[in-house]
Amino acid sequence: MAERDTLRTRFHEHVRDLQDRICAALQAVDPGLVITEDTWTRTDHVGEEGGGGRTRVLAGDVVENAGVNTSCVYGALDPAFARQLGGDGADTLWAAGISLIVHPRNPRVPTTHANFRMVGVGARTWFGGGADLTPYYPHTDDFRHFHGTWRDATAPWGTYAAWKDWCDRYFTNTHRDGEMRGIGGIFFDHVASDDPAADQAMVRALSEQFLPSYLPIVQRRKDEAWTEADETFMLHRRGRYVEFNLLHDRGTKFGLQTNGRTDSILVSLPARVRFGYRWSPEPGSPHAEMMAYYRPHDWA
Amino acid sequence: MAERDTLRTRFHEHVRDLQDRICAALQAVDPGLVITEDTWTRTDHVGEEGGGGRTRVLAGDVVENAGVNTSCVYGALDPAFARQLGGDGADTLWAAGISLIVHPRNPRVPTTHANFRMVGVGARTWFGGGADLTPYYPHTDDFRHFHGTWRDATAPWGTYAAWKDWCDRYFTNTHRDGEMRGIGGIFFDHVASDDPAADQAMVRALSEQFLPSYLPIVQRRKDEAWTEADETFMLHRRGRYVEFNLLHDRGTKFGLQTNGRTDSILVSLPARVRFGYRWSPEPGSPHAEMMAYYRPHDWA
Repeated sequence: MAERDTLRTRFHEHVRDLQDRICAALQAVDPGLVITEDTWTRTDHVGEEGGGGRTRVLAGDVVENAGVNTSCVYGALDPAFARQLGGDGADTLWAAGISLIVHPRNPRVPTTHANFRMVGVGARTWFGGGADLTPYYPHTDDFRHFHGTWRDATAPWGTYAAWKDWCDRYFTNTHRDGEMRGIGGIFFDHVASDDPAADQAMVRALSEQFLPSYLPIVQRRKDEAWTEADETFMLHRRGRYVEFNLLHDRGTKFGLQTNGRTDSILVSLPARVRFGYRWSPEPGSPHAEMMAYYRPHDWA
Repeated sequence: MAERDTLRTRFHEHVRDLQDRICAALQAVDPGLVITEDTWTRTDHVGEEGGGGRTRVLAGDVVENAGVNTSCVYGALDPAFARQLGGDGADTLWAAGISLIVHPRNPRVPTTHANFRMVGVGARTWFGGGADLTPYYPHTDDFRHFHGTWRDATAPWGTYAAWKDWCDRYFTNTHRDGEMRGIGGIFFDHVASDDPAADQAMVRALSEQFLPSYLPIVQRRKDEAWTEADETFMLHRRGRYVEFNLLHDRGTKFGLQTNGRTDSILVSLPARVRFGYRWSPEPGSPHAEMMAYYRPHDWA
C-alpha cells in the first residue's frame, strides 16, 4: 500500500513538473503567449471532496488556443460507470495525469494532443496515454518526424506497431466513413504488467518525448506564409475535431461522467470552427492531397 | 395492416409537402436563399435497401445555414438498439419525419429547430416531435410569441404545460450546470393512444404551426442592426448548440446508430462557431441578461 501510494505521488509530481516544462517550451517559441492558470477542486459522485487539478489555458501569436492540464482525482465512482471501466467491482477511483492540446493559428502548423495517465479502480492500477498529430497541410516530412520520434521512443518495449495501429483505430470518426481525426501517433491504455514501477518508468520516459516529437515542427513552420484556402480547410477540419471529441472521445466522456470540470475538459475544443454540409477542398489542391492522409499510413 | 400502411404513406406525403411549404416561406423572407437538394437512399443494418430521404440545405442573406430534411427509413434494426428503443423485441423499424434547423446570420434573429416524426418498431407505432427556439438577444416579446403559439396550438389536447416542461428538460446541457440550449418550446415523444389516426391528425395539426411560431419573428428582426458583441455572443452560444447536439441529442444518436446519412444529420450544426474557455458576456450587457433566460421560465 505504501509502495502504491509512493508511485501515485511520484506520478502526480512528474506530470506537474512536465506541465511546467511544456508551458515554458511553448512560451519560448511564442513569446506573446499568455498563460491563464485555474486550480480547482472536485466533488465526487457521493458529494465528497475528491481531488482537483491545475488547468492552464494558453493563447498567443503562434498558439491560437491550447490547454495544458494536470489533475489528480479520487473517491467514489458511480457503480454503473465503475463496471464499465472494467474495475473489480470496487467503486473507488484514483486517477492522475497530464492532458494537453495545442491549436496553432497558422494552418501550416499541426494541432497536437497528448495525454499520460495513471489510473486505479479498486485494487487495479494501469497506465494509458499517447500523442497524436492533426496536420492541415501535406508537409509529410513533419509526419515522418512525429511518427519517427514515437517509433524510437517506444523501441525499448517494441510497442510502436501495436500502439500506432491502436491510435489509428481510436482517433477515427466512425460516422465519417472511417476518416481519422489526424495522422495518428501512438495510443495505449490498460497497460498493467506485474511491475507497476516499471510501467510507470516507461510512461514517464514516453511523456518526455512529447516536446521532441512536436516542438521542432512548430519551430520550422510557425513563420511559414499561409493562404485563405489553408485557413478555410483548417477551420473545417477543426469541425471534424469537434465531432470526434464530443461524439467519440472516451477521455471526454470519462471526464464528464466522473463529475470532472467541464471547462477543463472542453478546453480541448478549437477556438474557431466551421461546419459545412458536404464541404470538401478544391480538387488538386494541397488540401485535397491532405484528405488522403487521414487514413492509416506507414509514416516511420 | 392496410390501414397502418395508409397512415404511413399519408404521414410521409404530409412531411414532404410541409418541407416544400417551409422552404418556400423561408425563400419569401430571404429572396437570395439558395436551396441545394440531395436525395439519398439508405442501406440498413443487414445491408438491405431501407428507404431514404430528401435533404435540403439552405444558405442566403437572412439564413446563414439551414437544413430542412425529410426522410422515410425502414428495415432491420440492430437488435441491441431495438431493445434500447423500447420495441417489442421485433427488429424492424419504420420511421418518417421532417427535421429542420435554421441558423440565421443576424444575431437578433433566433435559431430554431423543429421535428415531427412517426415511428414504428415491430407492431408498435408512436409519434414524436416539437419545436424550440434559441435566441441570442433578449427580445422577450419574441419568446412570448413563440411559446404563445405552441400553447394555443396544443390547447385542444391540453398538453402545453407537460410538453413545455419536457422541452426544458430535454434541451439541457447537463454538463453545463443545467443550462438550456435555448429558451425551449415543446417536446413530446412516444405519443401512442389507441387511435393512431387521431394521433397523426394531432401531430399534423401541430406541424402546421411551425411557420406561424417562427416566421413572424424572422420578419420583424431580420433587418435589425446588430453589433460585433452580438455576433461574438451568438458564435459562443452556437458552441453550446454544438455541444448539445453531439453530446446529448437523441435524434443525432438515433440517426448515426441507424446508419443514417451523416451529412444530413449533422447539417444541424451552425456554419461558424466559437469555443472559449470560461467565456462569458460583459456584465450588464443584453447578452448577460440573455444568459438568465437559458433556464426554465414561464413565457406563455
